[in-house]
Amino acid sequence: MTDLFERTFQRSDASMSVGMVGGGQLARMTAEAASALGIRFVVLAADPTDASVDVAHDVVIGSAKSIDDLRALGARCDVITFDHEQVDVDAVRSLEIEGHRIRPGSHTLEVATDKSVMRETLAGAGIEVPKFQLVGSPESAGEPGNQLQSSLAVIESFSAVHGWPVVLKASRGGYDGKGVWKAADLGEAERVCVAALKAGVSLIVEEAVPIDLELAVLVARRPGGESVTWAPVETTQIEGVCRETLVPGRLERDVAALACDVARAVSDEVGAVGVLSVEMFWARGELMVNEIAARPHNAGHWTIEGSVTSQFENHLRAVLDLPLGQTTTTAANVACVNVFGSGEDLDPRQRLPLAMELPGAHVHLYAKAPARGRKLGHVTVCGEDADDVRYRALEAARRLGTPLPDELVANEALPVTEELLSTEALS
Amino acid sequence: MTDLFERTFQRSDASMSVGMVGGGQLARMTAEAASALGIRFVVLAADPTDASVDVAHDVVIGSAKSIDDLRALGARCDVITFDHEQVDVDAVRSLEIEGHRIRPGSHTLEVATDKSVMRETLAGAGIEVPKFQLVGSPESAGEPGNQLQSSLAVIESFSAVHGWPVVLKASRGGYDGKGVWKAADLGEAERVCVAALKAGVSLIVEEAVPIDLELAVLVARRPGGESVTWAPVETTQIEGVCRETLVPGRLERDVAALACDVARAVSDEVGAVGVLSVEMFWARGELMVNEIAARPHNAGHWTIEGSVTSQFENHLRAVLDLPLGQTTTTAANVACVNVFGSGEDLDPRQRLPLAMELPGAHVHLYAKAPARGRKLGHVTVCGEDADDVRYRALEAARRLGTPLPDELVANEALPVTEELLSTEALS
Repeated sequence: MTDLFERTFQRSDASMSVGMVGGGQLARMTAEAASALGIRFVVLAADPTDASVDVAHDVVIGSAKSIDDLRALGARCDVITFDHEQVDVDAVRSLEIEGHRIRPGSHTLEVATDKSVMRETLAGAGIEVPKFQLVGSPESAGEPGNQLQSSLAVIESFSAVHGWPVVLKASRGGYDGKGVWKAADLGEAERVCVAALKAGVSLIVEEAVPIDLELAVLVARRPGGESVTWAPVETTQIEGVCRETLVPGRLERDVAALACDVARAVSDEVGAVGVLSVEMFWARGELMVNEIAARPHNAGHWTIEGSVTSQFENHLRAVLDLPLGQTTTTAANVACVNVFGSGEDLDPRQRLPLAMELPGAHVHLYAKAPARGRKLGHVTVCGEDADDVRYRALEAARRLGTPLPDELVANEALPVTEELLSTEALS
Repeated sequence: MTDLFERTFQRSDASMSVGMVGGGQLARMTAEAASALGIRFVVLAADPTDASVDVAHDVVIGSAKSIDDLRALGARCDVITFDHEQVDVDAVRSLEIEGHRIRPGSHTLEVATDKSVMRETLAGAGIEVPKFQLVGSPESAGEPGNQLQSSLAVIESFSAVHGWPVVLKASRGGYDGKGVWKAADLGEAERVCVAALKAGVSLIVEEAVPIDLELAVLVARRPGGESVTWAPVETTQIEGVCRETLVPGRLERDVAALACDVARAVSDEVGAVGVLSVEMFWARGELMVNEIAARPHNAGHWTIEGSVTSQFENHLRAVLDLPLGQTTTTAANVACVNVFGSGEDLDPRQRLPLAMELPGAHVHLYAKAPARGRKLGHVTVCGEDADDVRYRALEAARRLGTPLPDELVANEALPVTEELLSTEALS
């Protein structure tokens, strides 16, 4: 029996309430899970058109970086949690001191929102990460000219050991491939450094890992450390953007088991509460942690239908310190394909009838205004046959207007049937 | 490609919208399905504390029987549908004439909301129903004294053929066992008739069917007649209230197949659009239709996790004339047990931690104020073993404060394990 249970037991209003910072699709899907459990769900949304505003029980319009807006959210809920990492960790820390219950807490957020802190924390705990080095932050040096030279010196000496190309990453603020650049030589690295200095962005330099597979493991963890993992998934990333999630995809059973151990170790190390997504590379016969996100994650959308308990429900359970739900998969194979906009004129909601013709296609749309490249929804299909579920999910996403890049359709390990390739192009 | 699709394709606001008359838990669960599909969902709720008000995208507070309030709902949505039958069919008919799209339509509602019309319609179409006779309506006769005598004459001659006891039912307004009385002799029948005359309620008299099993089949039907059925379920009714739903329960395969045929025939006969629940008796080696409800129904709550597509999603698909989703069950056995209040002091939301300890228990709470006998939620468990899923669902409901009557626990055909019976009584 948790302390929260004791507390809510005393209250005249029996409803537990969760407040989420950020009003996007993750908040929308968390709202659906909260509704089912009878839990009140409040969002702090930047804009009244945000995806979750229509379905949340209560809404605060404001900024995730404003301490006053965070306080306003905190006044309306028992626990504050997050649907993105664009938060001010200092503001979160202040709120914690004021007595607000924030899960995950400021320590976890600091590690998850700053790649240099994340890399150093995990490497320090003996968890494999790509070889990396801090290039130095704009605040840490004196003259811009000197700083550029010292940055390039770091990159040059790093490349002398690990070779070219290298990967340069912004420590903070990157997501969906933003804030990541590949540099083939010192000239390319210089252009990135100059732009980063101008923008006031700290960089880290990393080896270009010869990736065999990209995968992700989601963990849900309670404040006391109890945790569950879902089945590891293979993700297909194109230009840093997750396009599809396959369960189990090409992951061997022993790699999957190892990946779960790594993800749990990471979640313990960063003191995660709620869902933590751990994205990894399988390369050179070993697993390396690439990214972490301390929130429900795109790589876990398949859990809504593909698992006994979804990531959204277990996120709520974890931040409320309730017993976690079973994470068993409900089918031998699950495919989840993201729906992206192809332009402002084609709204996937107009295409629902076409996608719904595909048997077993679970369509999720986030009710966002369409725009080219904008993530507007996803489709999940569960079934016995890997090729079949992938075909139906891809085809449903295509019918909803998603442009399917060649890389996605031509995944040799999981070939898509001819039918998909031969269907007519979208009008 | 449906006409609605054509229509929404033209609109600048791409979102399709559904308006539901009634703001209870059925609307709440439909709102969750609408959110996932990116469909706008508006409710006409009698009270701001109704279960769906917090989660609907938009709310009209008003009466389901007021034509003005129905018009206000119609102005905010593409299609009007229902979460209960306490509607004025004449008002619905007027709105249809004004051009509102209402699904199910007034014809279906008339059959579903008046037991005498329903019995006559189905019997006229050759569908088996219990033997019945109209007792006469208060409006149809002259003096109250004469009317009582003529009512009793009908009942007496009916019982001369079909024996005592008989069942007396109010034609309109009954649900969850309300409006149904068993009369052992003419004296008991007279007491019911006197009260009914006083209240202005029409009665029908029916044989007391020697029920072997109670079952229900849900159908989802599009305007053009395309329909799907879910697996028939055994229901346990205590005092006319559905307490649990078992899939497949004790239903033999051939009875289940026949029940699906009957349900489809009923849905075609009444011209259903959306979900239609058909409750039946298995008695004397044949199926008889007892009740129908033209809306999502308690006997279909198991479909949220137990079927590829839930009744709520298929209700939305059907009323929007979108392709219907697969209704395959996701497990060999599913048990769904209702959560009832035991009093005002015990809110099941306070007991979530206890229920969540049970593996695979999908808890749904409707965020309603607790009261003795009030339906506050349900628990669904899916799995391989019938006894095991039933035990877990019953135990979770019990932990949430549901009083479990002996009849429920002592279902001999599906015995509950000793563990349930020996667990401590609720505090």
